[in-house]
Amino acid sequence: MDLDITKEVPYSFDVAIEKVKEALKEVGFGVLVEIDMKETMKKKIGKDMMNYVILGACNPYYAYEVLNINPMVGLLLPCNVIVYEKEGGNVVVSSIDPEKAIGSTDDDKLKKVASEVADKLKKAVDML
Amino acid sequence: MDLDITKEVPYSFDVAIEKVKEALKEVGFGVLVEIDMKETMKKKIGKDMMNYVILGACNPYYAYEVLNINPMVGLLLPCNVIVYEKEGGNVVVSSIDPEKAIGSTDDDKLKKVASEVADKLKKAVDML
Repeated sequence: MDLDITKEVPYSFDVAIEKVKEALKEVGFGVLVEIDMKETMKKKIGKDMMNYVILGACNPYYAYEVLNINPMVGLLLPCNVIVYEKEGGNVVVSSIDPEKAIGSTDDDKLKKVASEVADKLKKAVDML
Repeated sequence: MDLDITKEVPYSFDVAIEKVKEALKEVGFGVLVEIDMKETMKKKIGKDMMNYVILGACNPYYAYEVLNINPMVGLLLPCNVIVYEKEGGNVVVSSIDPEKAIGSTDDDKLKKVASEVADKLKKAVDML
């Protein structure tokens, strides 16, 4: 599995989530969904896990363009950005890399959008 | 891009969504998030598109197991199942294939979970 743009960040878990949202906004991405996995696991199966949030990021212009090129790309939307806290307290932020996630394709239009979105997400992670 | 388990179904768009949810439940998956892309596109950028819904499906036992094996897998969670209506009215259901989505990995534990989850999602799509 090599699909990620990852960085350890010098923030607490809660601050990291806010910083990630700001960085995503800066590059034109809103957060469509936010899933608190720790809370979900506790609620659904009574299990404890580390602080872990999945943010579903979306730039509607790119999403619109890409779904018109190939509706199957919705299987990879929104673009996930995860924030989690490792044992010891260090916080990791990781974004999906859409270029890697779509894998090999002969569709140049699709490649172009994936590459542009990857650049934006890299930029957002770099800001942290 | 070859990440999908896809089927054209003999239902209207709205009925298909309900049938998908029932089939997912049948194989142990709940729907954590539901994103109406048509509504989202209209609201965010004023664009019209086909009926298109992204369902974020999750089996909490598998999710818990897999995040403990490798937290990066959250980049592919929840498992997306898309439902959309093609021109002419035919409705397509497509689930991500987690085995294909994780790509090549040397981690046998991860492979095993991805394969089991893929089997469940295939079973759900087959039910439709």
